[in-house]
Amino acid sequence: MKNFIKKFTVLFAVLGISAIGVFAEGTGKSGISALLEVQQYNRAIHIMAMLLLGFGFLMVFVKKYGRSALTATFLLVSVSIPLYLAVKSMGIFAEKQEIEQFILAEFGAASLLIAAGALLGRIKMYQYMVLGLLFIPFYVLNELIVVDDHFEFIGKIADTGGSIVIHAFGALFGISAAISLSKKEHREVSILSDAVSDKFSLLGSMVLWIFWPSFCAALVPVEAIPASVVNVFIALSGSTIATYIASVSIRGKIDAADIANAALAGGVAIGATFDHATHFEAMIIGLIAGAISTVGFAILQDKQQRFHKIVDTCGVSNLHGIPGIFGGLAAIVVVDGLVVSSQLKGILVTVVLAIVAGLISGKIISLLGKMKTIYEDTAEFDVED
Amino acid sequence: MKNFIKKFTVLFAVLGISAIGVFAEGTGKSGISALLEVQQYNRAIHIMAMLLLGFGFLMVFVKKYGRSALTATFLLVSVSIPLYLAVKSMGIFAEKQEIEQFILAEFGAASLLIAAGALLGRIKMYQYMVLGLLFIPFYVLNELIVVDDHFEFIGKIADTGGSIVIHAFGALFGISAAISLSKKEHREVSILSDAVSDKFSLLGSMVLWIFWPSFCAALVPVEAIPASVVNVFIALSGSTIATYIASVSIRGKIDAADIANAALAGGVAIGATFDHATHFEAMIIGLIAGAISTVGFAILQDKQQRFHKIVDTCGVSNLHGIPGIFGGLAAIVVVDGLVVSSQLKGILVTVVLAIVAGLISGKIISLLGKMKTIYEDTAEFDVED
Amino acid sequence: MKNFIKKFTVLFAVLGISAIGVFAEGTGKSGISALLEVQQYNRAIHIMAMLLLGFGFLMVFVKKYGRSALTATFLLVSVSIPLYLAVKSMGIFAEKQEIEQFILAEFGAASLLIAAGALLGRIKMYQYMVLGLLFIPFYVLNELIVVDDHFEFIGKIADTGGSIVIHAFGALFGISAAISLSKKEHREVSILSDAVSDKFSLLGSMVLWIFWPSFCAALVPVEAIPASVVNVFIALSGSTIATYIASVSIRGKIDAADIANAALAGGVAIGATFDHATHFEAMIIGLIAGAISTVGFAILQDKQQRFHKIVDTCGVSNLHGIPGIFGGLAAIVVVDGLVVSSQLKGILVTVVLAIVAGLISGKIISLLGKMKTIYEDTAEFDVED
Repeated sequence: MKNFIKKFTVLFAVLGISAIGVFAEGTGKSGISALLEVQQYNRAIHIMAMLLLGFGFLMVFVKKYGRSALTATFLLVSVSIPLYLAVKSMGIFAEKQEIEQFILAEFGAASLLIAAGALLGRIKMYQYMVLGLLFIPFYVLNELIVVDDHFEFIGKIADTGGSIVIHAFGALFGISAAISLSKKEHREVSILSDAVSDKFSLLGSMVLWIFWPSFCAALVPVEAIPASVVNVFIALSGSTIATYIASVSIRGKIDAADIANAALAGGVAIGATFDHATHFEAMIIGLIAGAISTVGFAILQDKQQRFHKIVDTCGVSNLHGIPGIFGGLAAIVVVDGLVVSSQLKGILVTVVLAIVAGLISGKIISLLGKMKTIYEDTAEFDVED
Repeated sequence: MKNFIKKFTVLFAVLGISAIGVFAEGTGKSGISALLEVQQYNRAIHIMAMLLLGFGFLMVFVKKYGRSALTATFLLVSVSIPLYLAVKSMGIFAEKQEIEQFILAEFGAASLLIAAGALLGRIKMYQYMVLGLLFIPFYVLNELIVVDDHFEFIGKIADTGGSIVIHAFGALFGISAAISLSKKEHREVSILSDAVSDKFSLLGSMVLWIFWPSFCAALVPVEAIPASVVNVFIALSGSTIATYIASVSIRGKIDAADIANAALAGGVAIGATFDHATHFEAMIIGLIAGAISTVGFAILQDKQQRFHKIVDTCGVSNLHGIPGIFGGLAAIVVVDGLVVSSQLKGILVTVVLAIVAGLISGKIISLLGKMKTIYEDTAEFDVED
Repeated sequence: MKNFIKKFTVLFAVLGISAIGVFAEGTGKSGISALLEVQQYNRAIHIMAMLLLGFGFLMVFVKKYGRSALTATFLLVSVSIPLYLAVKSMGIFAEKQEIEQFILAEFGAASLLIAAGALLGRIKMYQYMVLGLLFIPFYVLNELIVVDDHFEFIGKIADTGGSIVIHAFGALFGISAAISLSKKEHREVSILSDAVSDKFSLLGSMVLWIFWPSFCAALVPVEAIPASVVNVFIALSGSTIATYIASVSIRGKIDAADIANAALAGGVAIGATFDHATHFEAMIIGLIAGAISTVGFAILQDKQQRFHKIVDTCGVSNLHGIPGIFGGLAAIVVVDGLVVSSQLKGILVTVVLAIVAGLISGKIISLLGKMKTIYEDTAEFDVED
């Protein structure tokens, strides 16, 4: 019964917030402008494929909680996107076109899914929904400060594809939240994958790889799209090659999880520069990102988990955290006319806000209950295996 | 040999009908009009992803006949789309642009796949092809009466996304056809799924979720697309949240099949109103649709199957039937200026025609053979498991 | 250590070649022209889905090396696309728009993946990268001679969708390369699939089917797209129906691998004529292609493998080789005003060049090591099963 009430609280919170704004409704438009917005819509669909199939299946490398990982993905997207739209429909925000606003909501959902990847296997389904409710307001606050520069404190930064405000923010939020939600017992359970779960994970990875250019270039002016998307593909190619070489060099054998994850690091890192870099710079950024991400998965992850006494189930610090910060810093070298202090302030504010928000949110979620042992689908799902 | 002849009969039927029309060929066009048609083409591709990957893998929740479910999906699409195009190229129908006609053919294929979902596991591969041959003419007839109002009997109804004429029609056709094709023995075999088949099913579900806005808005004027597609996503978010809450509240545990199916009910129900509703109305319709669909899966399905003495393998009445009708009725509240009697007549004609056509088709297909026990891939496929 | 050096050689080769051209950077453009290029970009994304998810998962029918098949796909795409762009940025080639050039690079990657399908299970991961490095220059040479008619030797051929220069070229290259890389022991190991690997393979097949029209019509003028893409879908429908009938007629039972593969033969064969054929001709070409491809898989494959003493793991000669040549020849009947001698010269040059290039490349790759037994993921991957 207590549980029941908890769940309805979540629902009413969503509905309540929705009701405040009653969502801003888009206004009619015509001609070329309508054509352009429908083109954006195509990229919005690509991003949605990344959110559900991409992030969802990437997390299915864990054999024992694949169903819950996919269900959590569904719930996180379904809570965060309407919530984001409702929040942004409040008067204090600048009015935006319908699809543009929707894409910004998808960016928020992506960042949330990254954060959730750090907590996978240690919270229950309704806790994911609470996570979404807590995450989005903090995310919007960071967007307001760093991207919109609402308080005229940061200046203009280079981060169109969200290396900093989406990837690094999500990863740091998730790792910080994990501190209150990890137990010693969790670290003792090794995460098991098998041939099938690895293939599902590679499927998710490929979906992310394929549509990543649409993520980065979603809101870029139409003339800049061709060079931009090719840059993203080149960076991804670079990180994929570097991941293979680094994985086999460090471990002696290839790790399928390295390939599924670190191959994407080029996409994470190029987010701050894809609309300014040459193709050659994109290749270099991709190669470096793939290499450092693989080093993270193959060498640092164990150490970091022991040090922070956490479990970062999906290794989000290695895929989104470090490559995201690296991408933000790479802009200093690559982007002409960038104000270095603005870029650094943007990174710093994002890092601090993500950590503080993550700590607070993790603490709140832990008050709703903390799992004794690691999650298995059997805990909440009506299944036998 | 008899079998062999049967199969070729199907082929020649397809070719024969094709030959009559030799398919209407599209005429050249240029400028903005061509750009618009290519934008429609993008949505046609999205719909094709729903037909094959979406409907196909959603049916793979059954462990024992996944290969046949996917093969059946391939065959149903391959028979129905050319057949629809051939039928519509006959002189009595209004001429349409190439891609528009193709999208209408995809709508027919979607409705057919819904119908087939009710029969899954009880007919053989070539019987699916016969099902397609029988279904499309009835579907076109209903389209002619209800959508095109060819006989000036119905008036204008609200059903752009096909809650009534695609979802409810397909579901009722399938359930009615199941009556002649179900045996007592079929109801005694429980449908087994496992961790892998559940994940494939969730994959299909996610593909449907992602591309659903393109399905609804496929033929909507370009200016109306932004608000429309956001409405569809909001309705889907609503049904996903409601499904989770209803599933865990009714069953005590979450059922992965509830999530994979009922999460989509918002898409089914919003089809009649997505181009008129506010975002808030879309959320309410989605929440209600998810809740009633889950009630269907968790409570009604057993009762209905006993009552009608059928097996509705994929629960199409719960996902497409009831939410489709609900969506059609919701339009009465939501759509300004709707003629209520037209809307009700449209629903009534669709229901009656679907049931009669389903009964006839089921009877014909049962004459070609009725399976003693429930289908397994080993029956027709060259496999060991 | 030796291995280590080998791997870095590959990396530096990629980088080195990249550095020569520093890739041609696209020039800004505006208005309708920019809209058109973004529409092409949507098709580029569709093709990328085919390359990774499509070709990748189609190869996962083999239970024992699914992870390596997917990793190889990732590496082949990541090596070949930047390499192609680098090569084409050298001064001797005509300048192209950014996205057009990128799509041509994807075509090259598709052809390479076809070639790799013949070698699957007999080479190691870094050998795939070497394969990519060797393949692309030969592919570009053939493109220069046959498509661009750079030496004014061939004339104009009909092959917009690459039946000849993509599919047949890749297949013949792969089979020829297999000669140096096959051992008697390889032919003795039967390739095992199971219910799960078959479903993954059907998933790959469906992804290819869905996006195939975007592959063929990627660079077609906007006005010609509607009729073109419908033709491709009709041809695919034809081959899917014919495959089912042929599979069950020849084998007595349906083979899931026939469905996953030969159903696509219509797409392969229509590549030379989809922009000229009527819908009815497209259906006929699809039906014939599906039938001959299934005959290839069900009857010829064993004989051919014994005759050439090779293993064609994925049966690329049956899916891409024979249907590709058939498609190229079908153009002689279908395309008005086609110069028959040009078409025949185009086919002949492609066949000869592919065989010679494949023999050379296979020999070179075999010098880097030849596997004693058939590949299993355990050989190079850090896994237990």
